[in-house]
Amino acid sequence: MKKLINAVPDVVKEQLEGMAAAHSDVLKVHFEPDFVYRADAPVAGKVAIISGGGSGHEPMHGGFVGMGMLDAACPGAVFTSPTPDQMYEAAKAVNSGAGVLFLVKNYTGDVLNFEMAADMAAAEGIPVQNILIDDDVAVKDSLYTAGRRGVGTTVLVEKIVGAAAEAGYNLEQCADLARKANSYGRSMGMALSSCTVPAAGKPIFELGEDEMEFGIGIHGEPGQKRMKLVPADEITEMMALEIINDKAYTRTVRELEDGQWVDKSLTDEPFKRGDKVIAFVNSMGGTPVSELYAVYRKLAQVCADNGIEIVRNLIGPYITSLEMAGMSITLLKADDEILRFWDAPVKTPGLRWGI
Amino acid sequence: MKKLINAVPDVVKEQLEGMAAAHSDVLKVHFEPDFVYRADAPVAGKVAIISGGGSGHEPMHGGFVGMGMLDAACPGAVFTSPTPDQMYEAAKAVNSGAGVLFLVKNYTGDVLNFEMAADMAAAEGIPVQNILIDDDVAVKDSLYTAGRRGVGTTVLVEKIVGAAAEAGYNLEQCADLARKANSYGRSMGMALSSCTVPAAGKPIFELGEDEMEFGIGIHGEPGQKRMKLVPADEITEMMALEIINDKAYTRTVRELEDGQWVDKSLTDEPFKRGDKVIAFVNSMGGTPVSELYAVYRKLAQVCADNGIEIVRNLIGPYITSLEMAGMSITLLKADDEILRFWDAPVKTPGLRWGI
Repeated sequence: MKKLINAVPDVVKEQLEGMAAAHSDVLKVHFEPDFVYRADAPVAGKVAIISGGGSGHEPMHGGFVGMGMLDAACPGAVFTSPTPDQMYEAAKAVNSGAGVLFLVKNYTGDVLNFEMAADMAAAEGIPVQNILIDDDVAVKDSLYTAGRRGVGTTVLVEKIVGAAAEAGYNLEQCADLARKANSYGRSMGMALSSCTVPAAGKPIFELGEDEMEFGIGIHGEPGQKRMKLVPADEITEMMALEIINDKAYTRTVRELEDGQWVDKSLTDEPFKRGDKVIAFVNSMGGTPVSELYAVYRKLAQVCADNGIEIVRNLIGPYITSLEMAGMSITLLKADDEILRFWDAPVKTPGLRWGI
Repeated sequence: MKKLINAVPDVVKEQLEGMAAAHSDVLKVHFEPDFVYRADAPVAGKVAIISGGGSGHEPMHGGFVGMGMLDAACPGAVFTSPTPDQMYEAAKAVNSGAGVLFLVKNYTGDVLNFEMAADMAAAEGIPVQNILIDDDVAVKDSLYTAGRRGVGTTVLVEKIVGAAAEAGYNLEQCADLARKANSYGRSMGMALSSCTVPAAGKPIFELGEDEMEFGIGIHGEPGQKRMKLVPADEITEMMALEIINDKAYTRTVRELEDGQWVDKSLTDEPFKRGDKVIAFVNSMGGTPVSELYAVYRKLAQVCADNGIEIVRNLIGPYITSLEMAGMSITLLKADDEILRFWDAPVKTPGLRWGI
């Protein structure tokens, strides 16, 4: 295992210490339980947006803490769900009284632990809501997930809902916007290489010299198929068409209503000609931005050919899988409300503009 | 070779097409000869800042074209100097009449070709100056270079001098500031893995499973030594001390004076206790930002122990070597003038704040 680390058990802690040292103007880090939170939290009158999940996807989520995005992020061990006490303590630290929105990627452990944290926060009198992100069109049900996995759309929802909270949206409005933005987003990923979780010390799967994994998840979960590596244009077109041609997707999610967990049936409507989108081309970590531009070039062509207009884009390593080589594509339908909040200023270590 | 590419001869062209498609609000791309330039160039009354070099280091340089940084960037083939006609045509495209400053990384091919381009531009009546960036303390003289190589300081100088040009500095003032900022910056790099130039199709060097290359250049040039991989703290301390304890460095550079190339003897003064610095921890490409934070944590300690105060930082993949795993550290002494221009707004695909 070749990594810039010290003792394996200290990996996450030392990365958080580095973030705290580098970005003290933007964020602070609380240890035991671990969470990253805005240096100026709680922000008076503002709904607090909190996310979290296993480490190893940096800059997501800790790198998105700051003005206009997250109030707190709760990192688990690498590729491991954070525990409920992390989200609970983070909620107490950043709640201004306006309540807390948990943005939860759809992995079984994350979902359960965020639900438990919501119960704990609610018992403390903190207004709270959990919104699920489940945007990966590659597979229904996988290694760690019932239903679609939460992937690239997470980054976009955090930006959009973070800006809405900054602009004064209340908890219900933030939850409605998060639910909508998630329903507007679809993603798919692929890998050229595996990655190594420090605690395991060896690659989490093997790929042949001429193979790629199509439809991979952000923890190396198997995708749709293992196939021979083909040119970037072909890969990009396959992925873009999976996203663009994806049918309506209906599933049941658990959300809080008047303090009770209720099952709701939600449907993501498919893309249609004339849609405007935010296009997000993401590196899994080991793929350089130069290759992402080759992908974006083809993605723009495929979108145009299918009557989809890209009105904004984000290109780079934002939701990664350690040093895995590969990339993911996310398209998120952009209406006026979403564009307004996408364009709003943001100041975090991982995403910054307008300030 | 596992990369997201199509035909090897099209790699750079297609990446540039992707950039043009993604960032039309900021930049345009001219083909044959290839250069990236500001969408609003020439900017009336402003000195134009131009850099360039081999491709494969993205986002540098093309990703730094935009308001507050570069007016144009000239990409060669991967790890290959651009040709003089690229810089010459770029200069003509972005010169507003206030002249052109070439920022040149110290590699023999780059230096010669930028000098030739300067001669061509001067013959056309364009006021022009070449400033050399040579900040790598790892080795004196290497595979492609007489003297120190130009590495991480390049990114910082492009930001600082770009902001100064935006603020109205004239050509001589921009050149003076670039010379000073370069003399204030020192860098060192290391690699955990090699990288593969598409045209070669195989790794440019081999490293054993437990080996690292200490003092590596951005084209995989050999460093100070090949050694057994040690913990991140140890690597960071070794690199930081090479930089902090580096002695005064004197060399001869060729610059234009009244239209004639003259040899000038320049000396970079060493760091001293009490210095404020911008600290830049850079990924060579394949190393994720999480590991850079572990490095930054230790770097901050070593700086503090040596009386060096980090007042700004930049952490991420900014001057890369394709997918190489590894990192570099740059410290640049920050006086008031440098901090003023570091903090100024910048809007490029690769670096953005304040706008």
